[in-house]
Amino acid sequence: MDTYAKAGVNIARSEAFVERLKKTASRPGHATLWKGAGGYAAVVPVTDQLGIALTTDGVGTKLLIACELGKLETIGIDLVAMCANDLVCVGAKPSAFLDYYATSKLNDEHADALIRGILEGCDQADMMLVGGETAEMPDLYSNNHFDIAGFAMGTVAKNELLTGAEINAGQAVIGIASSGIHSNGLSLARKVLPLDVFALELLKPTHIYVKPAVKILTELKAHVKGIANITGGGWRNILRLSAKVGIEINDPLPVPEVFLALAKHVEMAELYKTFNMGMGMVVIADGGVDEIVQTFASYGFTARQVGVTNNREEKISIHSNLSSKRERVEISN
Amino acid sequence: MDTYAKAGVNIARSEAFVERLKKTASRPGHATLWKGAGGYAAVVPVTDQLGIALTTDGVGTKLLIACELGKLETIGIDLVAMCANDLVCVGAKPSAFLDYYATSKLNDEHADALIRGILEGCDQADMMLVGGETAEMPDLYSNNHFDIAGFAMGTVAKNELLTGAEINAGQAVIGIASSGIHSNGLSLARKVLPLDVFALELLKPTHIYVKPAVKILTELKAHVKGIANITGGGWRNILRLSAKVGIEINDPLPVPEVFLALAKHVEMAELYKTFNMGMGMVVIADGGVDEIVQTFASYGFTARQVGVTNNREEKISIHSNLSSKRERVEISN
Repeated sequence: MDTYAKAGVNIARSEAFVERLKKTASRPGHATLWKGAGGYAAVVPVTDQLGIALTTDGVGTKLLIACELGKLETIGIDLVAMCANDLVCVGAKPSAFLDYYATSKLNDEHADALIRGILEGCDQADMMLVGGETAEMPDLYSNNHFDIAGFAMGTVAKNELLTGAEINAGQAVIGIASSGIHSNGLSLARKVLPLDVFALELLKPTHIYVKPAVKILTELKAHVKGIANITGGGWRNILRLSAKVGIEINDPLPVPEVFLALAKHVEMAELYKTFNMGMGMVVIADGGVDEIVQTFASYGFTARQVGVTNNREEKISIHSNLSSKRERVEISN
Repeated sequence: MDTYAKAGVNIARSEAFVERLKKTASRPGHATLWKGAGGYAAVVPVTDQLGIALTTDGVGTKLLIACELGKLETIGIDLVAMCANDLVCVGAKPSAFLDYYATSKLNDEHADALIRGILEGCDQADMMLVGGETAEMPDLYSNNHFDIAGFAMGTVAKNELLTGAEINAGQAVIGIASSGIHSNGLSLARKVLPLDVFALELLKPTHIYVKPAVKILTELKAHVKGIANITGGGWRNILRLSAKVGIEINDPLPVPEVFLALAKHVEMAELYKTFNMGMGMVVIADGGVDEIVQTFASYGFTARQVGVTNNREEKISIHSNLSSKRERVEISN
């Protein structure tokens, strides 16, 4: 069976690096962040009441599939999604987006397609594209290769920050369906799946959950205790919301075909620790489940309660629906 | 003679792309930016009085020199400099920085050196490092190659925005010395200079002018009419502050050796349109020249009045000090 590490991506080492970075980055003489590095987004206070949420991300090796197929129309949507979906997880309303685009040689057609995707993503996320950097680096990137990074800003009132402090056992875990693989685990998926069959499926743009997420943060805030964007690290992202609880997923969302194909090559626990497995976002709610589900549904997203929080700290127990055997899978951080 | 275009970098095409981007990006239904894309930084209003300045940049092919020499200690300073020096040009006080770091394979030693540079840059710029993204993309980057992008946020009160509206003929042009080539024009410099002689010189970290710049913006604001960070496009950056005036530079700062070496391979006008030529930042001032010069000097930067604004719209006339002939050079946008 294959693993993410064998595909050349060492999550443990990346995480160790981020830990070192967090330590080095905390220093005296600066305003105290409302949220520091290492979570979904940092939050910098700019007035007593107002914080600026900031995050950056790329799309990983999904880029290579876009390059290989020469289809760059939607990779910009993925880029915006990776940033914007993170901002709502701290309770922020996304506001502005910037992109960094570095390529061997600027190709007007590619660049325009890329920007059209970014603008479509900004529309879906209700953000403005306010700037960017375009760099031609002929000796760094090989022919037709490029990289993109996104940077997003949102605003959040101090009393609306999602800190995870109100997450307790016995609350509802609401799953919102993904569009497919989104932009995580592609290094592994590219390695094990036949790209002649799956390339277009892997290239499907990431869902942008911003509009319904902002709506529940505004209208159903009393019920919303946590939001997890399911990205690198798979379902472990849910555990990162709170160290106090565990998660029982007893009724997972239907699993898209691409994950069933991946399941032939990747072990069960590794699947849930690497991919979104059909669930792109999770909301932890204390009451208001029907209203939250209905809000996501009204924007076209499939959503339902998939489980509950419990007292088994930092563990997720999943009644997997990958096969008719309904195996139980346990993962932890 | 060589040009930036021959080195594989097409500034005109990049600028046309940015123009298309600006048009596509302005759309109804969004708050009006105080500064839009295309300037040094975008400014997004978050209250009636407070704006958030945002910018993104990379370090271009200076990276390749760092990679080739295996010296990554200071490239992070350049990355912070490229962003932070832009923020002060709109009148903002830099506050937070995020980095995107993508590499073929995460190398702890390289990553630590890179982060130490970024933290040193953040110290110099009085910013917090609040987050970042580290991506391992073995198939996109070749061995030991990587790319980095920076994102920076600052704050600016509405009545403290530098818009260029108060720039008029007859004002002082104050030049602040660069440390050398900074992070622009490296594709051309790498092509024409012998790297065995000049590599370390080309790798010198970019000056970060934030502390004195914020000080003059705070204490001498009535005199400060414009600030230009001299980056890609060379001295044309000064013209971009205002379409109403031209610039006469009759007493340029001493020119570092590296530019004299470049002058053997690159035509005069091209030099001033590509490189900082020893002047990394320009302040346009209406009075207060001695105090502004003194402020930069107190932070260790060489500064002096180098010229004046005049009525010859969108033209710079330079009494070049590159040779004893004191040639006159004219450049325009």
